[in-house]
Amino acid sequence: MRSLKDLLFGEPLPTLGLANERLSNIRALAALSPDALASIAYANQEIFLSLAAAGAAGLAHSWQIAVAIAILLALLALSYSQTIWAYPGGGGSYTVARENLGETPGLLAAGALLTDYCLNVAVSVTAGVAAAASAFPALWAYRTPLALVLLAAVTVANLRGLRESGGVMTVPVYFFILIYLVLIGVGLVRAAGEGPGSLAAVAPPATVPVTLYLLLHTFSAGCTALTGIESISNGVPVFRAPEARHANQTMLVMAALMAILFVGTSGLTQYFGVVAGPEETILSALTRRIFGSGALYLAVQAATVLVLMVAANTSFVDFPRVASLLARDGYLPRQLTNLGDRLVYSNGILLLSGLAALLVFVFGGDLHALIPLFAVGAFLAFTLSQAGMVVHWLRLRGPRWRLKALLNGLGMVATAATVLIIAYNKFLDGAWIVVLLLPILVLSFKRIHHHYQHMAAELTLRGLPPSLRPFPRPRIVLPVSSVHRGVIKALRYASAISDEVTAVHVEITPGTGQRVRQLWDEWGLEQDAHLVIVPSPYRSLIGPFLAFLDQTDQEHNDGQLATVILPEFVPAHTWESFLHNQTALLVRVVLLYRRRTDERTRAIIDFPWYLRD
Amino acid sequence: MRSLKDLLFGEPLPTLGLANERLSNIRALAALSPDALASIAYANQEIFLSLAAAGAAGLAHSWQIAVAIAILLALLALSYSQTIWAYPGGGGSYTVARENLGETPGLLAAGALLTDYCLNVAVSVTAGVAAAASAFPALWAYRTPLALVLLAAVTVANLRGLRESGGVMTVPVYFFILIYLVLIGVGLVRAAGEGPGSLAAVAPPATVPVTLYLLLHTFSAGCTALTGIESISNGVPVFRAPEARHANQTMLVMAALMAILFVGTSGLTQYFGVVAGPEETILSALTRRIFGSGALYLAVQAATVLVLMVAANTSFVDFPRVASLLARDGYLPRQLTNLGDRLVYSNGILLLSGLAALLVFVFGGDLHALIPLFAVGAFLAFTLSQAGMVVHWLRLRGPRWRLKALLNGLGMVATAATVLIIAYNKFLDGAWIVVLLLPILVLSFKRIHHHYQHMAAELTLRGLPPSLRPFPRPRIVLPVSSVHRGVIKALRYASAISDEVTAVHVEITPGTGQRVRQLWDEWGLEQDAHLVIVPSPYRSLIGPFLAFLDQTDQEHNDGQLATVILPEFVPAHTWESFLHNQTALLVRVVLLYRRRTDERTRAIIDFPWYLRD
Repeated sequence: MRSLKDLLFGEPLPTLGLANERLSNIRALAALSPDALASIAYANQEIFLSLAAAGAAGLAHSWQIAVAIAILLALLALSYSQTIWAYPGGGGSYTVARENLGETPGLLAAGALLTDYCLNVAVSVTAGVAAAASAFPALWAYRTPLALVLLAAVTVANLRGLRESGGVMTVPVYFFILIYLVLIGVGLVRAAGEGPGSLAAVAPPATVPVTLYLLLHTFSAGCTALTGIESISNGVPVFRAPEARHANQTMLVMAALMAILFVGTSGLTQYFGVVAGPEETILSALTRRIFGSGALYLAVQAATVLVLMVAANTSFVDFPRVASLLARDGYLPRQLTNLGDRLVYSNGILLLSGLAALLVFVFGGDLHALIPLFAVGAFLAFTLSQAGMVVHWLRLRGPRWRLKALLNGLGMVATAATVLIIAYNKFLDGAWIVVLLLPILVLSFKRIHHHYQHMAAELTLRGLPPSLRPFPRPRIVLPVSSVHRGVIKALRYASAISDEVTAVHVEITPGTGQRVRQLWDEWGLEQDAHLVIVPSPYRSLIGPFLAFLDQTDQEHNDGQLATVILPEFVPAHTWESFLHNQTALLVRVVLLYRRRTDERTRAIIDFPWYLRD
Repeated sequence: MRSLKDLLFGEPLPTLGLANERLSNIRALAALSPDALASIAYANQEIFLSLAAAGAAGLAHSWQIAVAIAILLALLALSYSQTIWAYPGGGGSYTVARENLGETPGLLAAGALLTDYCLNVAVSVTAGVAAAASAFPALWAYRTPLALVLLAAVTVANLRGLRESGGVMTVPVYFFILIYLVLIGVGLVRAAGEGPGSLAAVAPPATVPVTLYLLLHTFSAGCTALTGIESISNGVPVFRAPEARHANQTMLVMAALMAILFVGTSGLTQYFGVVAGPEETILSALTRRIFGSGALYLAVQAATVLVLMVAANTSFVDFPRVASLLARDGYLPRQLTNLGDRLVYSNGILLLSGLAALLVFVFGGDLHALIPLFAVGAFLAFTLSQAGMVVHWLRLRGPRWRLKALLNGLGMVATAATVLIIAYNKFLDGAWIVVLLLPILVLSFKRIHHHYQHMAAELTLRGLPPSLRPFPRPRIVLPVSSVHRGVIKALRYASAISDEVTAVHVEITPGTGQRVRQLWDEWGLEQDAHLVIVPSPYRSLIGPFLAFLDQTDQEHNDGQLATVILPEFVPAHTWESFLHNQTALLVRVVLLYRRRTDERTRAIIDFPWYLRD
């Protein structure tokens, strides 16, 4: 088991190695930007699908939509750049909103982010499979299992640890950037030579007119391109020192690349008048138009698939980090703060993987059905983060605080407007799920926090009398099903820690009591423990045993509950457990989960007997 | 929970009520014979399907096949009648074969019987659904789920207890007998009036010739009609006193009814020249021929469905009984001897239900695929039982022992020949599964027996020195994750039973050790328990903790293993368990299942702390 685990995930790393896990700019760009960069794979597709409903007239607007989104991108990049400087320790939306706006907005931002990370993983692997299936249509029928296999691969890579995954990622990310820049360059040259294509001839027939609603709907769909842009400001601590400067440089490079790729591909698609069939992505159709269907085409599709896997990976960096922050503050289960063998938050990784697998499975690998859930959360988190920054500047008033507040304010207004547009336009398509989920998440966070607070108050040493008053020696009750060596050994142990041991035989089958009594007397055990035979007319063990315990505690009235010692067989082979009643286990669980209304506690002693092979 | 259980299964019955659960002949016939009686529903069908392959020429032989089987039936009835007299305490094949032939033949008979009981349940519910679907073709597509629903209903009825199920059954069984007698009577009258129908006109075209192989194959298929005939001799103890006489009367009535129904329906089918389409049973087609498709037809189909459910029920009486006999002798898990709340072997009932559900599910409700597995086991058990009886008479030599031995010998030869015919003719169709399974079952029974024998030898008090040498007072180790009231309470308990308590903090996160040490000293706990901080560079709790335990045991070298006391939180609500690491549970399991090579035992004390609501 251990060696299989080591092979899959690598050997355990010592805690001392923690500080070394930092990334250079080159690697950090590969680790943190793919979510944003890869968005063109599905954002372009959603813009195309939305506009194609209005035929050629609709598709003529794709360029404007792309530019509008690029402007929003520029605003966001400027805003987040300020966040990086202000929060060099990692300024995720959760931290910024919580510090500046309070608990509930912070939790709302956190819930929105966690939701979107799950969705990003599901969307990315689904889009990756769609890109692969555009090249190899035979794969189309196996989208769901393929997506789950990709997901499993990303999960394993992440459980191995950040640095290694960073290393694995560098090649495909730069390959993707390079090949798309080449695609756009070649496209521009050919565009200059060939002149524009005609959409009218190839576009599907219009089923709806071009309305403001349609354009806003398209804009909402396209905004999925911007999800993930906050990764770098979240992840400042993974950069090498000076972290803030390195993070800022990387973010500006990322924003520029995003703008070029997104506007470039959208513009060329419209210029050439490219459309796609039902089992092909629009990017795949554009690539065929520019490169033909040969090796270069396949290289672009391969790059797309790989970068989408790496995009899914971004969430595997962010989700466990945000979850561990929430868990550290007591809003999520503490286990999410545990660093696993490989110095990663293994529980967070597994949780994310499970949730994303559920999404892929439920939506059956259908990208177009998943997308409407996406982006609401991201833009809500953006808005809260920008609002937090505005408050931050108003409160702090450093140099040029008015300009900074204005910039973040602009970002806030733009993203808030976008949230409303998306939530309204995509509500019935699926956004309602997220709108419903977010308040539930916030309430759950608060409920969990309440539990931890409550528990800390209950367990605090404050107010405890300083002298340690010892307990009296316990009374012990030993259940006896039959008289054998295991029972005798347990009895010897009980006699060593108690002056009053009572053996209890619950007589389920009439006649066994007499037999036990006879052996008990024969072996002179009565001097060590008084044997009580309890009848059980309904053949239940637990009921009569509990009744006896209550009775004996009441009769003694010495302020303590009798300790129960359970002789337990441990068989040599696991399958042999099925040959035993597991009564000890059952009694233990019932005793443990039988709540007390007073302060007294019943200790339970497991006394194993190891059956020989 | 409790009241829902009572509603479904009835209130618990006291053990004292056990002796009252006896049945009159009328009820016993209803409880024990349906397996045998209902067999006509599928035996007729299998004979028809087998002979139809040879067209009209083949179908002309059905009457002979039916008579051959009826003769076998008479032989078996005579043989089993002797078993009932010889074994008034219940002479199942297992008991008879084990007592007279030895362990392995007994286990083989038991394995064969248990297999066939499972198959009988699966075959009966499947055939019941097929009968219902013959009347309502829309049900045909839902055969598997319908069969599972029927199975669940029978299971619940049986968990309620034998007498009540006996009551439920009386009506449909006598309704079935009555309506089929009427069907045969009316059929005979009409046959006398109308004269024979012609098979040549309606029979499917012949695809194979009529060969000896085909006839033997058909005979094998038809032998499924005789499965279940041993129920009464198995179930002698459920009759009212004098049990043997009542059982014998009932068996003779049953055999006569079986012969009349089987030969009657087969003969009329052939005489009228009835054939059935692919989605109808042959009995349904015969009934339509005699009664038309009106209310009487529906009544016959309803009676068939009901009696098949009751037939499934027969196995619910026998399987748990045989399983409990095997378990009592140590060949199956002891749990199968437990009488449940309603004085039935609930575990056996649930096991049978689960296995039958698996069969229905795997074979997708296809009766014709299930049948070849059937009958091999039953006839093997018959053979072993008759062979046992022969040995019984040879050994006992009571009055007229030669005649008795001859009768049982005839039964043995006939059933042995039948086993060989079935196993050979149906081998590739599915009988191989049973042929393979039976030796595996026998080996498993022996392996289980070995385990119990071994354990009894290990635990016996024989050879134990008579004086009870007490243990020394235990050393105690208390794992401490942080210093809180739960730990302090556990420490007070530990101090009451031990003079040497050691607290251990495994430092998973650097720095926590210092904090624990500080609080420990501040509260003056060091005088009660020495605190040891154990580093854990790889952030594992279990490894360093176990290493510490081994080390401290080795250093003390006092012949004992330190007892571990585990402070454990019990949250007020179940969902809150997810907010805790469950470390205590994990440590407990690891400690318990860590096998010792020596005689020493490590006791584990659970010390719960109940978190307030």
